[in-house]
Amino acid sequence: MEFSSKLLEQAVEEISQLPGIGKRTALRLALHLLKLPTENTSRLTKALEQLKEKVKLCASCYNISDAPICYICSNPKRDKSTICVVEDIRDVMAIENTGQFRGLYHVLGGKISPIEGVGPQDLYIEALMDRIKQGEIKELIFALSSTMEGDTTNFYIYRKVQDFDLKVSTIARGISVGDELEYADEVTLGRSIMDRVLFERTLKKD
Amino acid sequence: MEFSSKLLEQAVEEISQLPGIGKRTALRLALHLLKLPTENTSRLTKALEQLKEKVKLCASCYNISDAPICYICSNPKRDKSTICVVEDIRDVMAIENTGQFRGLYHVLGGKISPIEGVGPQDLYIEALMDRIKQGEIKELIFALSSTMEGDTTNFYIYRKVQDFDLKVSTIARGISVGDELEYADEVTLGRSIMDRVLFERTLKKD
Repeated sequence: MEFSSKLLEQAVEEISQLPGIGKRTALRLALHLLKLPTENTSRLTKALEQLKEKVKLCASCYNISDAPICYICSNPKRDKSTICVVEDIRDVMAIENTGQFRGLYHVLGGKISPIEGVGPQDLYIEALMDRIKQGEIKELIFALSSTMEGDTTNFYIYRKVQDFDLKVSTIARGISVGDELEYADEVTLGRSIMDRVLFERTLKKD
Repeated sequence: MEFSSKLLEQAVEEISQLPGIGKRTALRLALHLLKLPTENTSRLTKALEQLKEKVKLCASCYNISDAPICYICSNPKRDKSTICVVEDIRDVMAIENTGQFRGLYHVLGGKISPIEGVGPQDLYIEALMDRIKQGEIKELIFALSSTMEGDTTNFYIYRKVQDFDLKVSTIARGISVGDELEYADEVTLGRSIMDRVLFERTLKKD
């Protein structure tokens, strides 16, 4: 791509550094910003700068938060004895959207992945151990994605918490609500049969 | 989407204002920026601000430019008697990439579109007329997309330049190089037959 403007080229270069955005999309976005009033661009750049400067991680669960302790951890109505272990903040948002979980979270910030050079020390696992050592926690729910990395991370944490009096569970795997059995993969279908639940449980809403 | 951080929510809100970027993608981009060193975000925001503050339109052809006159208009080797009329700067880049055009451009900044409320006065048509009145221009090449809006714009300009001693042409429409005839639409195939060129012309490279 040959640009008639160095400034445009720089902007396109920077925008295309973002994941999933190529040079063409970056150019489209840059030209779009050029057409808009200056306030719009200022609002965008200010929001990004503020995000970068002021957003913190919750000192307890490592969720993203504006305050030192996030709104979930500081909510007195939440059940402080149950911790759901997730990979990142998007998982917290997804689970919160279901309205089915009243415990607290622990955001690891990733999964153990030797291929990508992510070891246990790169995740907030020690911080989780510190929370467990305080003795208030009774159950740990693993809600990582069921990939090799997710399973490795689950197992690593599982081994570390063996000496504590802790129930360790993992979210149920099975056929999605509304899915056809014939299109389900066999691992999922197999687990949904193994982990079958009493029919009455599906009848009562809590 | 429920956010644990107002700042994150604001950033996502602003990013998702960009065309083709939804809330989910915006969240992914915001979390990506949070993970990167602050310099990266600063570089991005600075590039966007500079773009908005300093980029100008070429006073002659309305191409985007850092200087008052763009590098194409100010190049003494370009043929100043031929003007290619295009919709926006991306078309200039596309034609420049072919290396087949040595004339100058005129960027209209859009097409006449009553539906979107774009009239002739919203485009740089008067500026094109001013260039033509100076008498140096011998040929006008229309290179707008062949939509109803493009055709309307072409025709509008065509009527305005009738009184000038000017050759008016339009880029050739036809089957793309490498395309199969059977999959071509009939309008394009029809025009490619009507506008057939002497075989010898396809043999010589210039």
